[in-house]
Amino acid sequence: MDVAALTPERARSHFREGLRTPTAGWCRGWTQANLLAVPRELAYDLLLFAQRNPVACPVLDVGDPGAVSTALFGGDLRTDLPAYRVYEDGRAVADVGDVRDAWRDDLVAFLLGCSFTFEDALLRAGVPVRHIEAGTNVPMYLTSIACRPAGSLGGPLVVSMRPVPASLVPAAVRVTARYPAVHGAPVHVGDPGEIGIADLGVPDFGDPVEVRTGEIPVFWACGVTPQAAVMASGVSFAIGHLPGHMAITDARDDRFQVP
Amino acid sequence: MDVAALTPERARSHFREGLRTPTAGWCRGWTQANLLAVPRELAYDLLLFAQRNPVACPVLDVGDPGAVSTALFGGDLRTDLPAYRVYEDGRAVADVGDVRDAWRDDLVAFLLGCSFTFEDALLRAGVPVRHIEAGTNVPMYLTSIACRPAGSLGGPLVVSMRPVPASLVPAAVRVTARYPAVHGAPVHVGDPGEIGIADLGVPDFGDPVEVRTGEIPVFWACGVTPQAAVMASGVSFAIGHLPGHMAITDARDDRFQVP
Repeated sequence: MDVAALTPERARSHFREGLRTPTAGWCRGWTQANLLAVPRELAYDLLLFAQRNPVACPVLDVGDPGAVSTALFGGDLRTDLPAYRVYEDGRAVADVGDVRDAWRDDLVAFLLGCSFTFEDALLRAGVPVRHIEAGTNVPMYLTSIACRPAGSLGGPLVVSMRPVPASLVPAAVRVTARYPAVHGAPVHVGDPGEIGIADLGVPDFGDPVEVRTGEIPVFWACGVTPQAAVMASGVSFAIGHLPGHMAITDARDDRFQVP
Repeated sequence: MDVAALTPERARSHFREGLRTPTAGWCRGWTQANLLAVPRELAYDLLLFAQRNPVACPVLDVGDPGAVSTALFGGDLRTDLPAYRVYEDGRAVADVGDVRDAWRDDLVAFLLGCSFTFEDALLRAGVPVRHIEAGTNVPMYLTSIACRPAGSLGGPLVVSMRPVPASLVPAAVRVTARYPAVHGAPVHVGDPGEIGIADLGVPDFGDPVEVRTGEIPVFWACGVTPQAAVMASGVSFAIGHLPGHMAITDARDDRFQVP
């Protein structure tokens, strides 16, 4: 299956039928999104958290309470992602392929930009994307950088990492800076220790990738950040996507490109 | 008094002492902001309304419930604006110079970008700004363009208007597009009737200005838009700035400029 060539609707039907896979490289040209659904009484804190941490949490769309689709996402948010993570009292209690049973009428779904969206632009600019080459999930890490808290929500910045040949780092920065709504330019280039990452080989989410001689690890803010806040803040109930297993929306990626 | 040369702190002390004036042309180089404070139970709807209508409602800062200053605004939000408008059940019930008596502990203050912020850049680019020349308030109009509603909040887009010599319209667009956080590029150029404005001589807020031969009316989204939503939606209680009488923040305007 040429997953890059699929339409969002076709991809979602595969996920609805049970296919469980990271979505990097899927549906070239379409915007991928992080999902976090929280009870209505927490929605203000989450929206404010996103507002205060816009690089990590670029809000693309917010659903009405209980709604299982949004303006950007025509599918069913309970079934049409490849996998989900359910949280209770700040702990991940289940990784599942379907959340019809766990869904609640008071849940407000947030769709946040995802850096998978600009990976096609990176490839077109000649910047290799290792986890796509390897067919694995992108590596993601908790950092020592604290987000600006909002109400009951606070926690660390989460980043995704792509190893980039040193000579292509400027191109990687330039290309991704044009997509601020899907995390934009990197937040850190080089030494992982400086942002509190002890071992690149042991990501907190996703799979490790090889960093070759002459390559520099480049870090982008990641939309798993609010899930880290859910954990750090002991949120009573929330449903997120399983990191790397994104919502593929009906929005073209060039919609979020700036000149 | 050379109001353009004042620091935000000095300007705010004049307002605190009772000076009541529109703030166009004040504190060159500093960011001006719209104020809207709503009860905590409405804060989610307002933040979502802003998220869904980002050109009219660019959120610069949101205070904690009851707080009378924010990260961007070091003064006292109850006294340090030149004038306020108090709303009850969607009706403007008072225009006052001080809201210490009306303020409530459950109010959440929103500061939204204001187009006065880019007027200095317009002047530097050779684009005249008529209401500054005339020493009056900018004219603002309710339009026939509906905002995307959010929860209990909906209403029309409000615009500010500046007459621009036809040859300078491209410059006005180019300059202001660099300030997306303070409304950015115009939303309409030319015929006011096309956006439901019957008579430029009778603005809904602020003062009329002369449109001279060879000039084209240019319309920017305006941060009074959420006050129009307060009115259209019958919001129980809210405090806004009196249109044109802005909060002058401690943030430099170049902070909100993009390349």
